[in-house]
Amino acid sequence: MAEVLKKIAERATEKTNIRLIPRNVERILAALQVTSDFWKVVDYSDLPVPAASEISKGLIEEGFVKVENDELFLTEKGLNLVKELNIPPYVDYTCQACEGRGIPFYANKEWYRTFVELAKDRPKAIQEYDQGSVTPETTVSRVLFLDSREDLRNRDILVMGAEDDLTGLAVALTGLPRRVLILDIDERAIDFDNRIFKELGIDNAEAIRFDLRNPFPEEWIGAFDVFITDPPETVKAFKAFIARGIASLKGEGSAGYFGLTLRDSSLNRWQKFQKALINDYGMVITDIVQDFNAYMNWEYHSETRAQKVAPVNKGPSDIWYRSAWYRIEAMPGFKGENIQIKDEVFRELYLDEEGSTT
Amino acid sequence: MAEVLKKIAERATEKTNIRLIPRNVERILAALQVTSDFWKVVDYSDLPVPAASEISKGLIEEGFVKVENDELFLTEKGLNLVKELNIPPYVDYTCQACEGRGIPFYANKEWYRTFVELAKDRPKAIQEYDQGSVTPETTVSRVLFLDSREDLRNRDILVMGAEDDLTGLAVALTGLPRRVLILDIDERAIDFDNRIFKELGIDNAEAIRFDLRNPFPEEWIGAFDVFITDPPETVKAFKAFIARGIASLKGEGSAGYFGLTLRDSSLNRWQKFQKALINDYGMVITDIVQDFNAYMNWEYHSETRAQKVAPVNKGPSDIWYRSAWYRIEAMPGFKGENIQIKDEVFRELYLDEEGSTT
Repeated sequence: MAEVLKKIAERATEKTNIRLIPRNVERILAALQVTSDFWKVVDYSDLPVPAASEISKGLIEEGFVKVENDELFLTEKGLNLVKELNIPPYVDYTCQACEGRGIPFYANKEWYRTFVELAKDRPKAIQEYDQGSVTPETTVSRVLFLDSREDLRNRDILVMGAEDDLTGLAVALTGLPRRVLILDIDERAIDFDNRIFKELGIDNAEAIRFDLRNPFPEEWIGAFDVFITDPPETVKAFKAFIARGIASLKGEGSAGYFGLTLRDSSLNRWQKFQKALINDYGMVITDIVQDFNAYMNWEYHSETRAQKVAPVNKGPSDIWYRSAWYRIEAMPGFKGENIQIKDEVFRELYLDEEGSTT
Repeated sequence: MAEVLKKIAERATEKTNIRLIPRNVERILAALQVTSDFWKVVDYSDLPVPAASEISKGLIEEGFVKVENDELFLTEKGLNLVKELNIPPYVDYTCQACEGRGIPFYANKEWYRTFVELAKDRPKAIQEYDQGSVTPETTVSRVLFLDSREDLRNRDILVMGAEDDLTGLAVALTGLPRRVLILDIDERAIDFDNRIFKELGIDNAEAIRFDLRNPFPEEWIGAFDVFITDPPETVKAFKAFIARGIASLKGEGSAGYFGLTLRDSSLNRWQKFQKALINDYGMVITDIVQDFNAYMNWEYHSETRAQKVAPVNKGPSDIWYRSAWYRIEAMPGFKGENIQIKDEVFRELYLDEEGSTT
């Protein structure tokens, strides 16, 4: 019976070009014991959408799973498989107080209230820029996390893209950094931030429209204590965003923060990222907090490859897309890169075999 | 004024042979704004004890800090420095519910109650084996963490050393793994576990006296889904314990867990460990949760190098020693090592310039 997991993993590997193993099939079967919602299955199994999708389709083909009303159910054959192989159900012990982050978003109620109040008029996430905003609880927790690592107060902070999350805004609203520079390609986010800075008289923060394919001007190189970004999970995008972020750091002890998901990339990909961070850029990883970043559902979900490859037509009804929160620190001899990214490379920034939500 | 931080960092680097930077001095000054207890300063500053100690001594020499009744206080000159350099006080947003782990230890009350009840007669931690047990909350949280990552139920689990923490016992008590093998050099821990297994009729768990310097017998190689260990933080010990643990793993997707502290090693050391994990052993890091493991004070503290190098004679009055919890996963082509560790090497397992608590 264990052979069938191998067969399904191999079939899904062929179809997706993502390396999958029986353990990945087990995790789908663990999830299916507690939910019939495909998007929760993706969440619980920590797999890229195309991988979770093809494994589900394999299970359907083999008669272990059936689709009813756009939901997935284990068949009797499937229940027998689970029983015979002794595959346990998915369990969740996430702390309800801090949502599993280790830091509760309400640790500073004032920051949370101010942010939620100001963010209510935020621009909508749009597909053109791979946007999908994190929850306000996530954004405020990021700020608290920086503060707890002494990366907020009196620091020069660079926020690179993903300002639909309003992380740069939340950082600046505390009034604690020395300087906040927010770069984003989306004019709407830039205008939104700058209007608030002007209204509130915050004069040490500034948002600038900037295309991160372009090299930074000289004055941003070696100029920041901290960078924050949330890059697409392709190798090229990761290298482009992170390497440029690292180039902006002042020196040893300066830190970078970013989200990295398993919904749009595999652990194989993660290993490549970690190699680049440590070997090529001379960084050390100080934190990896799984599921720290929770993303709100985006209106364009039905247009994504994720929905197209899914085994069901129904979209997500609840938060299902999460990413881990990385903190990295610059070590002796660290070095970034500040090269121009060509247009043809840029298209590949978002699209590859593992990504599907953009 | 910033020059003085550099001077103190350089002086401490010379004295300790640990690479230190102005940011490290800043973190000591951040801690000293909220505590006068040296051991809490170590905790808050995330530095090896000898480093925190030499920086403190440098601050005392320069008149920024004074010692009174074995406690450390910023002098007026010190307060001016902090103000002038705008060094913020240490802040702590740790979730009170889950103690910052993201998983609350009471998520399974039964496991916690059973463990605490049985652990009350545990053998005392002794210096001979570098023991210093984690709190019961830590041990039970480790078990919950494994379970939430599908590394507990129906798994073959190897627990390598540090059984003064009773992690192997707690894992076995759940009754959920397929098999639990506990190895420790301390006869008392072994007897304690086996007596409980016998009393409770747990027949899939076993504790064996084993010196981890020795190679594993053939039947343990490639035999486990999960290993758990808590190695000393020297490069040699780390490689010996972790590489052997990796050799015991069955295949891709198998996982390793271990604690790694910044109280007995620096981030430079961490970077070396991460390089070895990824480049030499073919693993990927999936989690690094800072301060997951909280260690109870050990009775032999006054005999340690930590106490000898400290700028005060007073020992710790509260938990101050913590370590991060790592989860690593085996990737394609992963490989461990199962070599004999020679005696002269073993002495170096515990002792080096950064370690001081053994």
